Amino acid sequence: MTMIGSGNVAWHFSTMFKSVGIEILEVYSRNQEEAKKLSNKLDARHLEQLDKLSDETDLIVLAVNDDSIDLVSNQIQTTALVVHTSGTASIEKLSNRRKGVIWSIQSLRKNQETNYSKIPFLIESNSENDSAALENLIKRISPQVFIKSSEDRLKAHLGAVIANNFVNHLYSISQELLIEAKLPFSILLPIIEEETRKVHSFEPKEIQTGPAARGDQKTIESHLNIIQEKELKEIYQLISDRIKKLHHDL
Amino acid sequence: MTMIGSGNVAWHFSTMFKSVGIEILEVYSRNQEEAKKLSNKLDARHLEQLDKLSDETDLIVLAVNDDSIDLVSNQIQTTALVVHTSGTASIEKLSNRRKGVIWSIQSLRKNQETNYSKIPFLIESNSENDSAALENLIKRISPQVFIKSSEDRLKAHLGAVIANNFVNHLYSISQELLIEAKLPFSILLPIIEEETRKVHSFEPKEIQTGPAARGDQKTIESHLNIIQEKELKEIYQLISDRIKKLHHDL
Repeated sequence: MTMIGSGNVAWHFSTMFKSVGIEILEVYSRNQEEAKKLSNKLDARHLEQLDKLSDETDLIVLAVNDDSIDLVSNQIQTTALVVHTSGTASIEKLSNRRKGVIWSIQSLRKNQETNYSKIPFLIESNSENDSAALENLIKRISPQVFIKSSEDRLKAHLGAVIANNFVNHLYSISQELLIEAKLPFSILLPIIEEETRKVHSFEPKEIQTGPAARGDQKTIESHLNIIQEKELKEIYQLISDRIKKLHHDL
Repeated sequence: MTMIGSGNVAWHFSTMFKSVGIEILEVYSRNQEEAKKLSNKLDARHLEQLDKLSDETDLIVLAVNDDSIDLVSNQIQTTALVVHTSGTASIEKLSNRRKGVIWSIQSLRKNQETNYSKIPFLIESNSENDSAALENLIKRISPQVFIKSSEDRLKAHLGAVIANNFVNHLYSISQELLIEAKLPFSILLPIIEEETRKVHSFEPKEIQTGPAARGDQKTIESHLNIIQEKELKEIYQLISDRIKKLHHDL
């Protein structure tokens, strides 16, 4: 296997491949210092030029920025399978004959211990053989492997952004309101924990509660009255309307 | 103490008061069957008419719908402290001379075991003496007791709706997207857990990640391209814009 890149994803993907006995032959990165560090850690060769790939490599993993995928792919002359690791980039960004994608639905940070066996992976390839090979490979790491198209992967990525980044921003908004009321954010932790506990056992739609779900227009109006920021008022109104609609259609 | 109401809040508040040794003298509810059940459970008298309140009661708790607070309050002739339990209703809904509020920042469901000592409470009264008395009382139940105005309580309530009900709706939206991609919602549970774990130790604003936080307009455009529903597009755009603004101002 060849690892191209030396950032968070390169670091974790090569660590996790190595942990299931897959040999990393070589590491290439524009950042030579980081490439050296990573190749040392993996007992791999530090590859200094992309046109000097080992003939023995059977899988080339591009753990690079989305914007660099096509550029790097174009520089690789190989009969091996070339995969990228992006949640949003189409498989078509790769110009190689055999191509694929391995995306982990979890943000990975260098030096942060990660239980790879709990990560869900979406994979894709332009050939059934390579799909099956990738599936077998990733199943050695985690039982949750799904073969999905680039479009479905983008939908899952959007879902992850909403469930993770947008949820975090809602917590930020809550904190802003609590700061106005001189209250610590920690008073919301019990209900946040409770909500997280519940979505492990129930469909989110089934456990929706609150003023919008019960059509409590009076409370909605009280809330809108104390929101001063225009954008926040709009967010409040749109999410409330969507909850109302969903729960009237039930 | 007198409990007025027989719903979820009445059930839990009287259980928690009793658990710290406060005697519930009597229970009144429009729903006589439920009032009887609750008074039996508490070894309390079933009060059949609001004008027959015990002279000995020193605290009357109105655990009734927000819309009934003023009506019930008007029917109570007493020198005792009268409190309601709403997160949104102003203390001014009570017409009694001595008035107050006890709000628990946690949804309470009958027959669902609840660790009262972990619930944060916001309390309020129109006199300093009664505020202090309420504070002492609730501190016997939980260490997290905050004396706050009705306006601050409404802000905290709004914060709780956003951090709980709105977050749950974001999970619903994520699930809709995953269903389109024929993927189970469970693939998002690891990142949801991770996010919940993080807000226990960090300010939400500090740990904001994702395309909007890093100004990755390309990914934002890819997401907008696959969202078909107009309302969802607006929600996505508004939340992304707000994250971008917050993180450019940092």
